[in-house]
Amino acid sequence: MKKIVVALGGNAILTAGEKATFENQYNSVTKASKFLAKIIKAGNKLVISHGNGPQVGNLVLQNEIAAATIPEFPIYALTAETQGSIGFILEENLNNTFIQEGMEKNIVTLLTRVEVSSTDEAFKDPTKPIGRFYNEEEYKEILAEGRFPIKQDSNRGYRRVVYSPKPQKILNAEIVNSLVEDGNVVIATGGGGIPVVREDGIYKGIDAVIDKDLTSSKLAESIDADILMILTDVENVYLNYGQENEKKLDIVKVAELEAYVKEGHFSSGSMLPKVLAAIEFAKGGKESYICSLNKANETLEGRSGTKIIL
Amino acid sequence: MKKIVVALGGNAILTAGEKATFENQYNSVTKASKFLAKIIKAGNKLVISHGNGPQVGNLVLQNEIAAATIPEFPIYALTAETQGSIGFILEENLNNTFIQEGMEKNIVTLLTRVEVSSTDEAFKDPTKPIGRFYNEEEYKEILAEGRFPIKQDSNRGYRRVVYSPKPQKILNAEIVNSLVEDGNVVIATGGGGIPVVREDGIYKGIDAVIDKDLTSSKLAESIDADILMILTDVENVYLNYGQENEKKLDIVKVAELEAYVKEGHFSSGSMLPKVLAAIEFAKGGKESYICSLNKANETLEGRSGTKIIL
Repeated sequence: MKKIVVALGGNAILTAGEKATFENQYNSVTKASKFLAKIIKAGNKLVISHGNGPQVGNLVLQNEIAAATIPEFPIYALTAETQGSIGFILEENLNNTFIQEGMEKNIVTLLTRVEVSSTDEAFKDPTKPIGRFYNEEEYKEILAEGRFPIKQDSNRGYRRVVYSPKPQKILNAEIVNSLVEDGNVVIATGGGGIPVVREDGIYKGIDAVIDKDLTSSKLAESIDADILMILTDVENVYLNYGQENEKKLDIVKVAELEAYVKEGHFSSGSMLPKVLAAIEFAKGGKESYICSLNKANETLEGRSGTKIIL
Repeated sequence: MKKIVVALGGNAILTAGEKATFENQYNSVTKASKFLAKIIKAGNKLVISHGNGPQVGNLVLQNEIAAATIPEFPIYALTAETQGSIGFILEENLNNTFIQEGMEKNIVTLLTRVEVSSTDEAFKDPTKPIGRFYNEEEYKEILAEGRFPIKQDSNRGYRRVVYSPKPQKILNAEIVNSLVEDGNVVIATGGGGIPVVREDGIYKGIDAVIDKDLTSSKLAESIDADILMILTDVENVYLNYGQENEKKLDIVKVAELEAYVKEGHFSSGSMLPKVLAAIEFAKGGKESYICSLNKANETLEGRSGTKIIL
C-alpha cells in the first residue's frame, strides 16, 4: 500500500475548446473518476490535488464583466471559490464512483492555504497567464488603461499574467495526512492552494497563482508520500517532442532529466512545470511519475508513463 | 468542556447596506473572530457553520450579468463557491486571532454536501429569497421572460426565490466530529450546505438553498453536540418585537416557544427560522441558544441570550 499524491490538471476538468458549462466540467470528471478509483482499488492511499487555470480565468473574467454591479474579488479569493466548485465536482463524482463500485471510502475536501514568501523573486515579474486571449487592439487598450499586467502568449495572442511564487508551506498538511492515514481519500490544495504570505506573524492573502504541480510536490513531501503522480493528457515525457527524432522517456534519473531541462526540451507553458515538480519530489529519494490520467494504474504497474527517480 | 455548533449569519459577514467588497467582508470577520475565539478560550470544542445569503445572491447576479461570455453555474455550485471564499475569510481570520492570542489551535474548513429529499414539499413552491431587490418594472419583465421565480418581499420590492428543502443528512458529519474531537476548530456546512439528492443510489446537486440554521441544527444533532448556538445581531428572542409590550425571553421551554410560533410572534425572514432550528435541536434534550455574536461568551455563562430547553 502506497501513499500517493495525484495532481490533476485544470484541463482534465475542462477540455480545451469545450464550452465552460458546469455540465461539461462535471461530465469530464465523471470519466476521470473511474481512473482515479482504480488507483484506490489497487490498494493505495490517495490525496488528490487539482489545477484551476481555465476556471479561475473564467471567474476573473466574470468579475471584470460584472464589476459595475458586484465588487471584484482578489484572485486569491477566486482560487478559494474554485476550491469550492471544483472540489464539489470531484468529491461528488468520486463518491458516486465509490458507491457504484461497492467501495467503502469516504472522500473529504479541504480548503487549503499555501504560504509563499513575500520576497520570492516571482513578485518582481508576473509570468503565469490566466483567463482568455486578448487581441492586439484589446491588448493596447488594457496597457493604456493600466488595468492589469498582460503579455504575449506563444503567438496565440495576449493574456493577463499574474505572479507565480513558489509554495513554501502547505497549511494543514498534518490534517491532510491524518485524514488519508485514517483511510479517507482527500482532495486538497486545489488550484495550487490559496496563496498567503506571513507578515508580523499574521497570514494574509496575496494576489498570485501558485503552480499546482509545484504545490502537489510540496504537499507530497509534507505528508511523506511514496509517490507523486502528475496526470496529463500525454502518456510520457518526450525529448524533441513532436519532431522526427522524438524520444519517449520511460525511467529517467533526476540528474539526466535536469540536463534535458537545461537543453530546453520542455515548453514552459505545459511540460516544464510538471518536470520541475517531479524532479523536486524525486530529489527526496521518492518516485515521481508523469503519465496519462487514463493510464494511471498501468503506470503504477510499470506499464506506462515516465518514472523519475534519484 | 462542551461541544458547540455555532451558526453565523451571512449578514454577520456582510453588514446590511455595506458595499459587498472582499475587504468589508474580511474586516467584519476579523471582528467576529475575537468573539468566536473567546468561546474556544473558555475551553469549548467549536464547529462553525455560516450563512451565505448576500454572498450567493451576489454570485447569482454576477453569473447573470456575465452570462453571454461565461456560462452560468447552477446555484448549488455557487454555494460551493461561497464555501470556498467565506471559508477562507473565516479560516484565515480565526487562524490569525489564535496566533495573536497565543492559542495552539488548528482550524480546518470542510466542503460539505447536505442531502435533501427530492419529495420534500418545499420543491412545490420556491420560498427563499436570494440576491438583490427588483422594482415593479423589472419584476414584470422577469415574469414575462420566465427567467426565474420571483416574489414580493415584505414591501421592500421583489426578489428571486429558490426552493428551500429541509436538510436530511449532513454528509461527512463523522469526519467533522472526529476532527473536532481531535481538538481542531472546524468550519463546515457553509451556506446551509451544498444541497444534493440521492437517486438510484447516486448523489446529484439540486438547485435549492437550505436554511443554514436548520442545517446547523442537523449538524449539531449528527455530531452529538451539547449546544447549538445561533448567532445574530440581537441579544435575545422577543415576543411582540418592536412593540410597546415587547417581552424578552431568557429561558424558554420548547412547548412554550412552539406556542409563540403558532401565535405568529416571529417573522419568517429573520427570527422564525432561528427559532425553529433551536426548537429542533432542543427537542433532543440538549441546549439551544439564540444570542448576539458579541455576547456569545456571556450567553454561555448565563448572562445574556435566550436559552431553549426541552
